[in-house]
Amino acid sequence: MSQYILKIDCSDEKGLIYRIADVIAKNDLNIEKNHEFVDQENQKFFFRARLIGNIDTVALKSQLAEVLPSDANIYLGARRAKNIVLMATKESHCLGDILLKNYSGELFANIQAVISNHDVLRELSEKFEIPYFYVSAENLERRAHEEKVLTILSEFNPDLIVLAKYMRILSSDFVKHYENRIINIHHSFLPAFIGANPYKQAYQRGVKIIGATAHFVNDNLDEGPIIAQDVIHVNHEYDWRAMQRAGRNVEKVVLSNALDLALEDRIFIYGNRTIIF
Amino acid sequence: MSQYILKIDCSDEKGLIYRIADVIAKNDLNIEKNHEFVDQENQKFFFRARLIGNIDTVALKSQLAEVLPSDANIYLGARRAKNIVLMATKESHCLGDILLKNYSGELFANIQAVISNHDVLRELSEKFEIPYFYVSAENLERRAHEEKVLTILSEFNPDLIVLAKYMRILSSDFVKHYENRIINIHHSFLPAFIGANPYKQAYQRGVKIIGATAHFVNDNLDEGPIIAQDVIHVNHEYDWRAMQRAGRNVEKVVLSNALDLALEDRIFIYGNRTIIF
Amino acid sequence: MSQYILKIDCSDEKGLIYRIADVIAKNDLNIEKNHEFVDQENQKFFFRARLIGNIDTVALKSQLAEVLPSDANIYLGARRAKNIVLMATKESHCLGDILLKNYSGELFANIQAVISNHDVLRELSEKFEIPYFYVSAENLERRAHEEKVLTILSEFNPDLIVLAKYMRILSSDFVKHYENRIINIHHSFLPAFIGANPYKQAYQRGVKIIGATAHFVNDNLDEGPIIAQDVIHVNHEYDWRAMQRAGRNVEKVVLSNALDLALEDRIFIYGNRTIIF
Amino acid sequence: MSQYILKIDCSDEKGLIYRIADVIAKNDLNIEKNHEFVDQENQKFFFRARLIGNIDTVALKSQLAEVLPSDANIYLGARRAKNIVLMATKESHCLGDILLKNYSGELFANIQAVISNHDVLRELSEKFEIPYFYVSAENLERRAHEEKVLTILSEFNPDLIVLAKYMRILSSDFVKHYENRIINIHHSFLPAFIGANPYKQAYQRGVKIIGATAHFVNDNLDEGPIIAQDVIHVNHEYDWRAMQRAGRNVEKVVLSNALDLALEDRIFIYGNRTIIF
Repeated sequence: MSQYILKIDCSDEKGLIYRIADVIAKNDLNIEKNHEFVDQENQKFFFRARLIGNIDTVALKSQLAEVLPSDANIYLGARRAKNIVLMATKESHCLGDILLKNYSGELFANIQAVISNHDVLRELSEKFEIPYFYVSAENLERRAHEEKVLTILSEFNPDLIVLAKYMRILSSDFVKHYENRIINIHHSFLPAFIGANPYKQAYQRGVKIIGATAHFVNDNLDEGPIIAQDVIHVNHEYDWRAMQRAGRNVEKVVLSNALDLALEDRIFIYGNRTIIF
Repeated sequence: MSQYILKIDCSDEKGLIYRIADVIAKNDLNIEKNHEFVDQENQKFFFRARLIGNIDTVALKSQLAEVLPSDANIYLGARRAKNIVLMATKESHCLGDILLKNYSGELFANIQAVISNHDVLRELSEKFEIPYFYVSAENLERRAHEEKVLTILSEFNPDLIVLAKYMRILSSDFVKHYENRIINIHHSFLPAFIGANPYKQAYQRGVKIIGATAHFVNDNLDEGPIIAQDVIHVNHEYDWRAMQRAGRNVEKVVLSNALDLALEDRIFIYGNRTIIF
Repeated sequence: MSQYILKIDCSDEKGLIYRIADVIAKNDLNIEKNHEFVDQENQKFFFRARLIGNIDTVALKSQLAEVLPSDANIYLGARRAKNIVLMATKESHCLGDILLKNYSGELFANIQAVISNHDVLRELSEKFEIPYFYVSAENLERRAHEEKVLTILSEFNPDLIVLAKYMRILSSDFVKHYENRIINIHHSFLPAFIGANPYKQAYQRGVKIIGATAHFVNDNLDEGPIIAQDVIHVNHEYDWRAMQRAGRNVEKVVLSNALDLALEDRIFIYGNRTIIF
Repeated sequence: MSQYILKIDCSDEKGLIYRIADVIAKNDLNIEKNHEFVDQENQKFFFRARLIGNIDTVALKSQLAEVLPSDANIYLGARRAKNIVLMATKESHCLGDILLKNYSGELFANIQAVISNHDVLRELSEKFEIPYFYVSAENLERRAHEEKVLTILSEFNPDLIVLAKYMRILSSDFVKHYENRIINIHHSFLPAFIGANPYKQAYQRGVKIIGATAHFVNDNLDEGPIIAQDVIHVNHEYDWRAMQRAGRNVEKVVLSNALDLALEDRIFIYGNRTIIF
């Protein structure tokens, strides 16, 4: 018996659950988990199920397509550890946290490589036996640097790219290669403090909370669909460096939670928003 | 077109969703919201849907009973404002918060009465035109006092009784009259600090968080199924009275949230736990 | 024996605590609470103490001025309930919460009046015997409307004005009359979602947290010094109206907490930030 | 110029701040940070300051002792990285988090060794070049096992012992050797769920929050003075293993925060409570 993940989004119509459940029942599959959401305003239907049984995924997909509206997106695949590549710059807390979780068997993923624009995190990555690719950006235009990174990525063709404090902005061209497959951690509760040094901005604005946001990367910097956010309380005793120190715990936990959701195919990207089951 | 709430719990079997969806589809009903949960360990299935259409609830219920396991509990009713009676003692923050929400039209309920073992909150209740019943416990045994309260309650036969800081313990006999229909707010993050004066206990234990718990009342004091909990952080500057003051905000918000869930029939009681959709 | 609040801010110098403690000791006063903070970056010193004893405040102030740097701001006064005027528009949750806390003796303040640009909240205010002033803005320019409000305010000369969901923007001129004495509740975690309908903005941005911010009002809309902030988690099931409903609890609690801090003179305004003891 | 930490607790008397500040001023020291708290109920005074300058600590201590009540505890020492020994069993998340923070230079400490009753975490510890001592408890009575551990500890004489998920109960005798110097992380929001498998207990009780508590270890299991606590929200979809997984993030963050406080000498143990500046 195998586990499968089924994800469907389409226009909402009467009887969708019935039609899906009918197909699943006829294939003698068991539904282990099942979530559904309808955006009433836009009449849009979202469905995710974890199925158990033995199936021909191609056949099942086409049976589903027959009974669903023509605009349906159907994802169906065996539940499996995804391949991921981590990208980072100099800070070790997010990268290290993911490497550690992976090392202790808590990450449902296969880390293929770490790519960095600095050589700082090589030792840490190699401690955990993850290949490290240092791609210096010095004396390179953005395009040239990104091409070098893309070349390495193409060797691995990862399911997901995780920006674990990768401090360079990615171009639209780069993002297009891995659309909806790049997750970033931004060190503020977006949409506050877009751009450089959010903690300095937060300190200057005098906020009483700081936070972190994990999101998919799209064309517009820091404006991709949000997956997870959290905050902690600060007070006047925190200068921006103290905020940065305290913020690291939020950053790594938020990224870790978002990554778990993505690795289990629990996220739908829906315009600028996410539906998470 | 009317709205209905359908709640089902039963042993889990293959195809339950299909069978339910089939009945709903054949009755030409639209599912507006739909949640499902299976407790894998105990093979128990929970389902709640908000339906839109025009139905004969008795007929629909019997159609569902036919296709569901014999241990199925099926609740089906028009979505409507529930009748509630509030019970309180002397503290006004929870009672006042509910009266205020009701006054501003934010509570999906009909408050029938306030019952108290003191006369302190009469003025407040009557400001909001809610009948107030003062049932002194002085010189009365528990049984005798509770019978007086039960007599008043029987006039109203409320869907729910809300203990908004009612500081007397209810006997098993009392509770049996309104099984699974009494909601209490306890001023600690249960199971910590069961019993009298949780804030004093919390202060003496030196905790760094205090909280509140809304739960259904069953036979065992403070041990009923939990609906909602929340906490706030405290520090050494809080003596127990400061904790009590700060705790009031948590108490009223937690009770308010739990009440909203109950008023929308979003809660299943499942042994000592709750499933909340 | 009386209680006094002493607040000092000045350039930091060696021995400030010693000098202040010396003056206090010589006046035979007891320090009940005492907080201090030095902004190292800007060499700025902040001090607040609650004193017990019997003093000539004018004399004590001048003794302190003698030993402190020439840029020192010294506030010294008997601890007393402040006079406040509440301003609101149509929503009752923040106003009602404050009226209720005041009614039950939990607010260390004297509410002098409610002023509104609508007549909606009159009944609620008068239930709690607070004079209600309806100043319609219809057919009036901002200046003319504000002058009417200022005329009413000048009768009361409140220590603090609390904007409990007052949905009109105040002009610089208005603000200048009550500089650093106006507290507003904004229904987002500032600086996110400045301006109109933050919940709609939050929904459109797809955030996973919503929040509220209490701040002093200065010239720039939603940019005054922040006193308190908090957030709650939301998910894809929240449309903007559900966010608004859920947000009300955060709004009222954050405003209530900020107001308590202001009523106890625990806040220093320091540029765009606050120091809170 | 050096940094020093001064901590004082004693009976409260009038003029204590003045006397302390006087001694500090006469020694030409600058106070960089300064916190004070008086427990009014028990008339107990707590004071901590970070001093900058050049001092003879023995002389300064005796000058302070002269002006303070006879029951005063005075701690004065150069601010320095403390020596710590980590103890763990099989779970890697807390240990790994501390090793990682230390590796990246974020921990103000010198990790001398890891001691474990299993050999599971050796590889991880040695990746980070920390000596690992495996002391099997098999076929040993508690006393005999603890003596072996104490022998290793005595070689290092650490300032602090950190139980990073060390799953054996320490005897009173063991604890006496390192009184007020052992920090433990308990995987529940104490005092709830004392004892074995808190997550199973939490699941069975049906709580809606789970949490973690960092505390000093004293004679009574899980009853030592609490340093830090935090919680996360859970729902019916969490079985106890899911709670355990989710709880790991809280555990490691709470322990990390508590450890930082201890490493900066910011904690006073006061009976069963802590005062934290």
